Amino acid sequence: MSELPAAGPVLAVDVGGTKIAVALVDASGRAYRIQRAATPQGPRADAETVWSVVDALISALLAQNDAQLVGVGVGCGGPMDWPAGRVSPLNLPGWRDFPLRARVNERFPGLPVRVHNDAVCLAVAEHWRGAGRGRDNVLGMVVSTGVGGGLILGGRLLDGADGNAGHIGHVIVDPQGPPCSCGGFGCLEAVASGPACVAWARAQGWRPSGPTGEGATASDLADDARRGHPVAAAAMNRAGAALGVAIASATQLLNLEVVAIGGGVSQAGPLIFNPLQESLRRHARLSFAADVAVVPAALGQDGGLVGAAALVLAGGTYWNPAG
Amino acid sequence: MSELPAAGPVLAVDVGGTKIAVALVDASGRAYRIQRAATPQGPRADAETVWSVVDALISALLAQNDAQLVGVGVGCGGPMDWPAGRVSPLNLPGWRDFPLRARVNERFPGLPVRVHNDAVCLAVAEHWRGAGRGRDNVLGMVVSTGVGGGLILGGRLLDGADGNAGHIGHVIVDPQGPPCSCGGFGCLEAVASGPACVAWARAQGWRPSGPTGEGATASDLADDARRGHPVAAAAMNRAGAALGVAIASATQLLNLEVVAIGGGVSQAGPLIFNPLQESLRRHARLSFAADVAVVPAALGQDGGLVGAAALVLAGGTYWNPAG
Repeated sequence: MSELPAAGPVLAVDVGGTKIAVALVDASGRAYRIQRAATPQGPRADAETVWSVVDALISALLAQNDAQLVGVGVGCGGPMDWPAGRVSPLNLPGWRDFPLRARVNERFPGLPVRVHNDAVCLAVAEHWRGAGRGRDNVLGMVVSTGVGGGLILGGRLLDGADGNAGHIGHVIVDPQGPPCSCGGFGCLEAVASGPACVAWARAQGWRPSGPTGEGATASDLADDARRGHPVAAAAMNRAGAALGVAIASATQLLNLEVVAIGGGVSQAGPLIFNPLQESLRRHARLSFAADVAVVPAALGQDGGLVGAAALVLAGGTYWNPAG
Repeated sequence: MSELPAAGPVLAVDVGGTKIAVALVDASGRAYRIQRAATPQGPRADAETVWSVVDALISALLAQNDAQLVGVGVGCGGPMDWPAGRVSPLNLPGWRDFPLRARVNERFPGLPVRVHNDAVCLAVAEHWRGAGRGRDNVLGMVVSTGVGGGLILGGRLLDGADGNAGHIGHVIVDPQGPPCSCGGFGCLEAVASGPACVAWARAQGWRPSGPTGEGATASDLADDARRGHPVAAAAMNRAGAALGVAIASATQLLNLEVVAIGGGVSQAGPLIFNPLQESLRRHARLSFAADVAVVPAALGQDGGLVGAAALVLAGGTYWNPAG
């Protein structure tokens, strides 16, 4: 166990495919002095270009900081070599086997630097200060461009054999289902991610009624479902049903208490939660499983930062690499 | 943590729907002086009748024992109120909310008595002294009349919110699949258990070629599959494929290292393992998941006794009720 004295704040870093954010986070889980920038895109976004944005955000933050940092927590897309923190995010082609933890450590010699999957950080945040607070068996999910997650079981973050536990997006919801980006078939992500919903709706004849046209997203789809477009509504029902199946499987396997769902798709509200709950009632029938609470994530877009900080501020619970 | 000094053996008890067994188990995991009897069946098998068989087996064992017991470990069918050890085994109608742990404690005042699900005990045995030994992330499965299991994650038994973790038989492998005894649809157990295989094969026109007739089992089905009966072979393929889907889901969710499979259906060998591995290769595509080792359980019919004993002999790893 390695609880640190919470004398000062933690520097939290959240590296995503579209946005990079940094902040200070105190022991109460409050994120402040948040700095954000767009993630460099395109062929010129090489490893050092992306790093320079992270570095500049940190400099901007520290220029106005007088507190003594107790460590640095970092969330980043996977896959990664964990706990070493060499990252190859699918959504960030410029970083392949990039030594993120080592580079941050060079800036902060002597401070603990901890890197984990960004979806794991969101789950950690929900357990630490969000919808799963006070419960020992929690699945935190993000349903967005992809579907990711993290598991707190028996009161501690589950890392798995090499830091990859929590891939709820690759629980299979239909073995005969569509191909998934992972190479498999019928994964939850291949059915319920935003792009999967849009692709299915288009294949069924949906044409967005809004101005977005070819660039239409799951948010446009949800808008049309709300307006009563039958294909758009069917797409949301299909995604919700798939989420219910995956959550039923996870709950019966793990005897979960709470499932907290965040990310853009979850913001569709009842359009996604109603069919989800219906599917869950159909499939989660063992008495202990029927009781699971499936709720929206309580933390907003700062969740990733809060969870990254918790890797340091509550390390005994969330940071336990073997050996 | 509660590792006991392993001065003496543990009394292990395994209560199943067809057989009850007791034995002594030493710290090496060796079960000896095994006593077995048939589980009382039918309308006269009330709570006390079943208990009297357990009690008599214990007496017979202790009559020839001169060692000082360090505790009692008990495996029993679920569901149960855990860790209290009040049991209501589906396969043992005479026990409903039966205070098994308390009754054993009355016989052995002052000794630790620990009761867990019998499938969990089999998984514990495979981690402690079997196919999962030395690995920290292991799923142990039993594929037989039902499909059950247990999870060792991060080097410790996962209990879940109230001792019900490990229900791999109720991971959903086909949301449009057959109804399950749990009330759900398309659970692994509804497709891959022995009775489910037999029922499917019969519905497809299979008539057992052996003498068992109406009482034909999955073992008869496997025999016919071996002889080249196309429907029998299709039934085994279907069960193996379903096992592969459930194992892929569990592995991608939990970053498992080893899955050990025991129970009667698994004894069909390549007839079940070949389609299982093919399905696993199709669905477990994330790099960390493709490496999972799916192997036959290493311990035979004594596994349940060995695992029950480990609840006491290696309590820090396998016995961690909250509070």
